[in-house]
Amino acid sequence: MKKIDEITIIGPGLIGSSLGLALKSKKIVKKIVGIDKSKNNLQDALNNNSIDESRNIIDQRVSRSEFIFICTPVSFIDEIVSRLVPFVSKKNFITDTGSVKNIFKKSTIKKISAISNFIPGHPIAGTENSGAKSAFNGLFEGKWCILTPIDEKDKNIKKLSALWKYIGMEIATMPVDEHDKIMSITSHLPHLIAFTIVNTAFKIDIKKKKELINFSAGGFKDFTRIGSSDPKMWTDIFISNKKYLISTIDDFINDLKNFKGLIKKNNLDEIFDLLEQTKKIRKSILKVNKLKR
Amino acid sequence: MKKIDEITIIGPGLIGSSLGLALKSKKIVKKIVGIDKSKNNLQDALNNNSIDESRNIIDQRVSRSEFIFICTPVSFIDEIVSRLVPFVSKKNFITDTGSVKNIFKKSTIKKISAISNFIPGHPIAGTENSGAKSAFNGLFEGKWCILTPIDEKDKNIKKLSALWKYIGMEIATMPVDEHDKIMSITSHLPHLIAFTIVNTAFKIDIKKKKELINFSAGGFKDFTRIGSSDPKMWTDIFISNKKYLISTIDDFINDLKNFKGLIKKNNLDEIFDLLEQTKKIRKSILKVNKLKR
Repeated sequence: MKKIDEITIIGPGLIGSSLGLALKSKKIVKKIVGIDKSKNNLQDALNNNSIDESRNIIDQRVSRSEFIFICTPVSFIDEIVSRLVPFVSKKNFITDTGSVKNIFKKSTIKKISAISNFIPGHPIAGTENSGAKSAFNGLFEGKWCILTPIDEKDKNIKKLSALWKYIGMEIATMPVDEHDKIMSITSHLPHLIAFTIVNTAFKIDIKKKKELINFSAGGFKDFTRIGSSDPKMWTDIFISNKKYLISTIDDFINDLKNFKGLIKKNNLDEIFDLLEQTKKIRKSILKVNKLKR
Repeated sequence: MKKIDEITIIGPGLIGSSLGLALKSKKIVKKIVGIDKSKNNLQDALNNNSIDESRNIIDQRVSRSEFIFICTPVSFIDEIVSRLVPFVSKKNFITDTGSVKNIFKKSTIKKISAISNFIPGHPIAGTENSGAKSAFNGLFEGKWCILTPIDEKDKNIKKLSALWKYIGMEIATMPVDEHDKIMSITSHLPHLIAFTIVNTAFKIDIKKKKELINFSAGGFKDFTRIGSSDPKMWTDIFISNKKYLISTIDDFINDLKNFKGLIKKNNLDEIFDLLEQTKKIRKSILKVNKLKR
């Protein structure tokens, strides 16, 4: 792959700074610029060498970067794209890493697409930690990156895919709605459950409340782990994916109620069938994935 | 610790056979007998050397074992205790490893306590796999074992605790109801969620259904992993802990509905507060546990 002169990462937090580290370790880019409002985070990103230069504003200088990655919480992304408009041209390539993709105003897409290259993206990677201080090289390896191009035939898809592939990701492209629907069940609902169950647990009336986690078999410990993810980031995600998340929550509540009904009626056979069904579904998924990779 | 002449493990599956392996590796017992209806499982237990002798019936010979561990699915445990009654005396010590503790008939407890030593227990350990073929030495290390003695002042608590401690467990004793309430939230609800969410996921209307798991960030993959646990074992647990599980499911559904309401109303501030609250609770739990261990 041809070496890139400069890349800008707006919001070099866990994702952005890990991206910087991955690009650096592959020696694919000469200079990485980090832009952030938080001085502390910029210092962390400089300290771990994921960026070479730090800035706290978006200005004319971004035009020097071949790629501009927006890695902020999702509620800021649309506005940042708009603020890039005065400074970018067809020489630049703009993308993002937001976990919800239905976040762009039509007017924003129109403006940016007219004067520059823009493909929204979502590398499905992360941990419960946040900030450049938690970044590490290898975060993206073997994970999937979903692109939701405005135009399915955009020749730039290849270019962006090549870069993500270069740092170890597999690529899928799909429509925005498909992405947001899938994420509502594979990522957003599990996180919402994790946040919720910790609260449910601490309302139950037991003596040794603080020792609850001691007595946690597989399940609760993992649940609470993802339940300690960044509050701002997840507030944004839940609100931004409202459209699909609400109906996914409803489906899930219905399924829980059905399950509860079976328990109430001592319906051993149906519970057993349901659990076996789950086990089969999971096996079939794993089989498909083995064949595919 | 004094070497034990003989121990019987009824149901040497994942838990029972791992117990055998742990006892063997500590060289604390001369002979381990495994009793099971399944010839295949007995053969697996003989093959991995977690038992020395296999039987398929409970008879007079169990009287030779100082400790008798019942490690079957919870629905069989009460009946097995009853079937031990004709063969045991004060020389024997009977315990179990069931994940629900409110499973004994009063009459069973009365009969067994009159003629032998009996303390119910629950080593909180396990994986999504089952059977002696999945057993391994080390399953219990660093985990908690909860005892729910019939009589809190039973001098035998020390004896049973010593054995579990010897293979690496930490011990807590508590009343049956406290145990079952705690487990309903730390183990049973998480498993029920895991079983349910896989089904919810596979009902959503997307094109690439079989690829769902590819696109799963932290959360769904772990959820499906515990959702592949043994159907018979978990059917039993859900039904046996009906009393607490149903109200725990109700509490959880209420909390989910509240959360959904906040999303619907775009209530960013309250969502943020709720997520931050969760993070704090989790931190406080971890702190307590660090101090304690």
